[in-house]
Amino acid sequence: MTSVGRKAPVAEAVPRVTGRLPFALDAALPGMLHGAILRSPHAHAVIIRVDASRAALIPGVVAVLTGDDIRDGPLAPTYGPVLPDRPLVAFDRVRFAGEPVAAVAAVDRDAAAAALDAIEVEYDPLPSAVTAEEAAEADAPVIHDRIPEREFKTFPDLVLHPGIDKNVCNYFRLRKGDVDFALRDAAHVFAAVYRTAPQQHGNLEPHVTLAQIDRGGATIWTSSAAPFTVRAQVAETLRFPAARVRVIVPNVGGAYGAKTYPRLEPLVAALSWKTGGRPVRVELTRAEEFYTICRHAATVFLTTGVDRDGVIVARKARILWAAGAYADISPRLIKNGGYSAAGPYRIPNVTIDSYAMYTNTTPAGGFRGYGVPQVAWAYERQMDEIAADLGIDSLELRRRNLVHDGDTFATGQVMEDIHLDELLDDAAGAIGWPGTTTHGVPESRIARGRGLACIVKTTVTPSTSTAGLRLEEDGSLTVLTSTVEVGQGSRTVLAQIAADAVGVDVDRVRVTYPDTATTPWDQTTSSSRSTLMMGGAIRKAGDELRRQIAELASDMLEVAAGDVVIESGRASIVGSPDRSVELGSLVRRARAGNLLAYATNRSVGSLDPETGQGVVTPHFYQATAAAEVDVDLETGHVSIVNLQTRTWAGRTVHPTLAELQGEGNMVFGAGQALFEEVVYDGGQIVNANLADYQLPSIRDLGPQWTAEIREAPAGEARIHGLGESGAAAVPAAIGNAVADAIGAPIRELPLRPERILETIRARRTDAAGAREEVWR
Amino acid sequence: MTSVGRKAPVAEAVPRVTGRLPFALDAALPGMLHGAILRSPHAHAVIIRVDASRAALIPGVVAVLTGDDIRDGPLAPTYGPVLPDRPLVAFDRVRFAGEPVAAVAAVDRDAAAAALDAIEVEYDPLPSAVTAEEAAEADAPVIHDRIPEREFKTFPDLVLHPGIDKNVCNYFRLRKGDVDFALRDAAHVFAAVYRTAPQQHGNLEPHVTLAQIDRGGATIWTSSAAPFTVRAQVAETLRFPAARVRVIVPNVGGAYGAKTYPRLEPLVAALSWKTGGRPVRVELTRAEEFYTICRHAATVFLTTGVDRDGVIVARKARILWAAGAYADISPRLIKNGGYSAAGPYRIPNVTIDSYAMYTNTTPAGGFRGYGVPQVAWAYERQMDEIAADLGIDSLELRRRNLVHDGDTFATGQVMEDIHLDELLDDAAGAIGWPGTTTHGVPESRIARGRGLACIVKTTVTPSTSTAGLRLEEDGSLTVLTSTVEVGQGSRTVLAQIAADAVGVDVDRVRVTYPDTATTPWDQTTSSSRSTLMMGGAIRKAGDELRRQIAELASDMLEVAAGDVVIESGRASIVGSPDRSVELGSLVRRARAGNLLAYATNRSVGSLDPETGQGVVTPHFYQATAAAEVDVDLETGHVSIVNLQTRTWAGRTVHPTLAELQGEGNMVFGAGQALFEEVVYDGGQIVNANLADYQLPSIRDLGPQWTAEIREAPAGEARIHGLGESGAAAVPAAIGNAVADAIGAPIRELPLRPERILETIRARRTDAAGAREEVWR
Repeated sequence: MTSVGRKAPVAEAVPRVTGRLPFALDAALPGMLHGAILRSPHAHAVIIRVDASRAALIPGVVAVLTGDDIRDGPLAPTYGPVLPDRPLVAFDRVRFAGEPVAAVAAVDRDAAAAALDAIEVEYDPLPSAVTAEEAAEADAPVIHDRIPEREFKTFPDLVLHPGIDKNVCNYFRLRKGDVDFALRDAAHVFAAVYRTAPQQHGNLEPHVTLAQIDRGGATIWTSSAAPFTVRAQVAETLRFPAARVRVIVPNVGGAYGAKTYPRLEPLVAALSWKTGGRPVRVELTRAEEFYTICRHAATVFLTTGVDRDGVIVARKARILWAAGAYADISPRLIKNGGYSAAGPYRIPNVTIDSYAMYTNTTPAGGFRGYGVPQVAWAYERQMDEIAADLGIDSLELRRRNLVHDGDTFATGQVMEDIHLDELLDDAAGAIGWPGTTTHGVPESRIARGRGLACIVKTTVTPSTSTAGLRLEEDGSLTVLTSTVEVGQGSRTVLAQIAADAVGVDVDRVRVTYPDTATTPWDQTTSSSRSTLMMGGAIRKAGDELRRQIAELASDMLEVAAGDVVIESGRASIVGSPDRSVELGSLVRRARAGNLLAYATNRSVGSLDPETGQGVVTPHFYQATAAAEVDVDLETGHVSIVNLQTRTWAGRTVHPTLAELQGEGNMVFGAGQALFEEVVYDGGQIVNANLADYQLPSIRDLGPQWTAEIREAPAGEARIHGLGESGAAAVPAAIGNAVADAIGAPIRELPLRPERILETIRARRTDAAGAREEVWR
Repeated sequence: MTSVGRKAPVAEAVPRVTGRLPFALDAALPGMLHGAILRSPHAHAVIIRVDASRAALIPGVVAVLTGDDIRDGPLAPTYGPVLPDRPLVAFDRVRFAGEPVAAVAAVDRDAAAAALDAIEVEYDPLPSAVTAEEAAEADAPVIHDRIPEREFKTFPDLVLHPGIDKNVCNYFRLRKGDVDFALRDAAHVFAAVYRTAPQQHGNLEPHVTLAQIDRGGATIWTSSAAPFTVRAQVAETLRFPAARVRVIVPNVGGAYGAKTYPRLEPLVAALSWKTGGRPVRVELTRAEEFYTICRHAATVFLTTGVDRDGVIVARKARILWAAGAYADISPRLIKNGGYSAAGPYRIPNVTIDSYAMYTNTTPAGGFRGYGVPQVAWAYERQMDEIAADLGIDSLELRRRNLVHDGDTFATGQVMEDIHLDELLDDAAGAIGWPGTTTHGVPESRIARGRGLACIVKTTVTPSTSTAGLRLEEDGSLTVLTSTVEVGQGSRTVLAQIAADAVGVDVDRVRVTYPDTATTPWDQTTSSSRSTLMMGGAIRKAGDELRRQIAELASDMLEVAAGDVVIESGRASIVGSPDRSVELGSLVRRARAGNLLAYATNRSVGSLDPETGQGVVTPHFYQATAAAEVDVDLETGHVSIVNLQTRTWAGRTVHPTLAELQGEGNMVFGAGQALFEEVVYDGGQIVNANLADYQLPSIRDLGPQWTAEIREAPAGEARIHGLGESGAAAVPAAIGNAVADAIGAPIRELPLRPERILETIRARRTDAAGAREEVWR
């Protein structure tokens, strides 16, 4: 009777719904100070002068941190997960509106607010570049004069091509086959530009950090999905040994990529340091979230050559990603987004150039899908444009090109465990495909359309997770892990995997919360990797623990260790279930307090820096989406009529939690497709609040939807991750449906009514409009 | 350049002295309730009725826990580390004044206090027995009708002889040789009764516990010196798997034995359970500390036979310990106190009977010295009485009897690493012994006297500690341990041991705080065992970590692993220090996040239940004391003129911390000798406050004192513990000095002026008064 595959009780369900679950938001220490951040009103400016002298005199103000403390102080002045290009607070220039310029710590919020008001900053404004395309222009302002590098690389396997041109933070290139030759030879060539907008993550719990720094070390309570990454960064900032920095992460109230890299912790640590060691807490306002992180806006110049039957012979992609003012994780994201632009198709000749462009905007980072939604929007939209142009059913066109087991990905990696045909047919069938398309009610203002999309997504590689299992004196089991519970249910899922890995009941398993001082190292809780990688580490540790148990039981039951069976908390002799011993009793006899086993799970892979060829993932996550929409031709409003996703799970650990992930992906995809956009005007965000920036809800999915998780039969399948796949497929499916409805190519997200109306007005029924000259 | 033996910076010294060090006292959770305890006014009574209905209606009161919840509820109704004889709250009878009868949880302290006032309890008082001698009388009330036993024993090696007679909780017996024969044959036989008083531990931080219990598990923040013992007890109380109970222990503000076993946690856990899972915090008042734990009062009937030269030929001890109303740890303490009654002397024939007697008083537990001060008071006082009677110098008498390497202890264990001769000579010499004794100024009211004492003390056996060492990505080191920092400096000392065990600088080492969810199992922080046992575990883990480092370095430096030298954070080739690699660089190459090593350190031993013969300790701690005092013959006031202790350390890890332990032992010993006593009147404590119960301070030591730690040369010596030894020797040394000054036997502690005056008045210069008939 295994736990995996069953609806085990969700960990802490009752305290979660009754508001008693502790989050970093709840962390408090005696004598704690309230921190607040002064932010730049300018998108780009030289800082002439920061005068905090009046602020420091305000009663209750304990410390004011400015660029003066940072520029020549004992701390590392800049930080960043790949390139340390971001100042703790700006000290020479500000590079985006909302960038921290100073921070204060005070005994209460009022004193902190008064201090912010009292800090005088004099700026000399500079011209700014808001989009990646603007930043690439010849007369664009230079945002960074110099891109700093780190002595030892945080991501040793990451291909870095920094600074080849003005405002290029970093780029990635992929070369496979001979694209120019193949395009010359192709029966048809399609080329167009596809754009997506910056988005806000909308995590319910804002970024919040409580830091206490003293000479002996640092302790940080923070809402982060990557405690060890925070530890490394804070240690670097404070120039402390890593062992003396302790990062504690309770439950996290939503992350989606917003909390994978340090964006607040180094500053709060520096502020606590400035107070001489007082605990300082900073909780961002909702507006400040918009100045902290966003999804990359992307411009994808995509050229695809096909033969007479629509079989793709070559693809060329040039992608500009708006990285924002600082590198953050862009160098890695544009690599993933880069090679993913070839899509889940068999293409012998591929050229990709992917550029992280510095822009005078909020720094961009990972966001559910990690670059794939942006490029999938391009390649799946173009797929429909090709189908329309060639008069091939778009499901059929995809079938002719989809990869199968044994095919190679754009990076040359041989693919396996691929189920896209089945997933696509299934999603399409669920909206009545092929069937006849009724383009709305004739003569009515409502046009109906349908669209499909399919994607593959990799997970961060190389990748390492360590897990410990501790069998306690009563036979209950502790899972030592630093996986972060971000709401995805990892505490439940990992407990299930551990229960089966050892042979105990899941209600006797408890999973730890991350605490870098004590829980084992894990790379990050992101990239749909925890169930796969941490689950694998737990299974390996389970093997070792079972070996220890079998050895002890072998002595006690007087049989060979190989004849010991462990299940439901008992060790028994194979074939003689009545000769058994309770696991707790074995532990007590061992006199060690408990039995302990640790294991590390690694996936390996790297890319050739010149060609982008190599192994990129231990498994390709797969999802398909099918959408049916109604477009109001008078208002431009899009309503989803039917939305379907199909995601490959290998084997599902917890059916309910998996289904919720699928539904979350749908909602996120719908939001990106229909209305989510951080809107800039002259370098200023004009909708930095949740009234003007609308987050999607399940109601936006309309009357009919199913997020189905597809499994292989138990025993045949490996457990994969599924937290992002659907989100990458949904926007393109919806966009394709809208294009189908209005009979015109739509090439920019979100599908805001005004954009739809504009397209309808300029309706170009000829899909060959996609045969534009490719942008170089 | 090793760290052990040097004055490394004391961990968290600055936050400790600036009030920023977090204690359990500081723990807080959102929505936390304040708990308060209603206590019995009677020493012994039947509970007729508890009516909490009015209390429950008071605004702000969330829960009231009474015997009704406990008697037939889902929780385990009773608890206790050895015998589960203590109710969470009393439900049929109260057995001591101050016993919890009900507990309330309310939104603030005022509501909690009002609720306590509103609970109506009806009692039917019973006769009570306050001292162990009273409890042993034929007409004493029966305090427990039945002594419950636990299904599986918490201390599997503990010899238990429960309930052989009325009010005997448990007893221990030791039989070596033929005492009756030897006494008949002895040249002289001395027999007398020696008494010590109950004491309060006086820990600066009171007992304080914050508990949050929900269906998923329990989390407990508590001021405890034994987190895993608390975990086991709370799991038993709540009937939860141990893995689902998490006990977190920050810094502890003094323990001294008061916090080694659960005395508050089960009740607070039950109270949180009663609220339906709200966090509940209970902090004891100073008065409540007196109703929580004390040192055992003891009555020692000691008979010693010597030959003509004063060489001891036989000893018989019968000891009654006042265990208080519940067993707590008495069954183990009376074993240690029992076999220790033979003292550090070569005695071929020994009979010991040691009884834990239930009394209607606060339960007694371990207290610095763990039973040795009480019996050392008896055997060292009697030594001086024998010396006086036989006209032998009391230093010389001791020399003739002291054990040496190769001699056997009372339990038959062969002793080694014994340095008592040297320690005793040295202490005696420091007060001018032998020299002439001026018994004060002739004709003045001041009499001066001198006294010596020496003891051995065992540490809990069998004993297990597990430690983990984690070498981080920058070569800094985390020590994973559940040793509790109770102010003794374990966080500094264990860091030093770890630094040397691996070969890194101590300022790059950080030691974890205990958290049962994540830090490795440890038996307890008590019994002077942490430096010895946890230090040993760390050294073993260090060996394993060095093996891993050497293997990696061997690959990298291209030499055999055996030729790798690890020191100061670098691995180099033996003889070629320039060919080296920084440890962090090795860790980063290993791509596991860090290197991890765990090790368990065990000591073994057990006693024959019939004879008390066997192995009791991995090492005998040794201390001697010498005192010179002035006694004011008019007021009975004793002033210490010179106090000296000598303690064997093997090797000192941190000179300052060791010295502070020695001084603490002196102060504790002086308090016990001179004035500390929990005074009962009719079953009521009359001095349950720190005005009437006086704690000693360093000023009570008088003008001249040295607590010297003696070491073997580095390299020759093992590291031992030294946190209790001196405290056991000091009271007898002071008592002997007072007896010497007034020329009369003093046989009861503390040496309060009225007691001295009474003895002077009844002065019996004939020390043969000790030749009383032995109490049977």
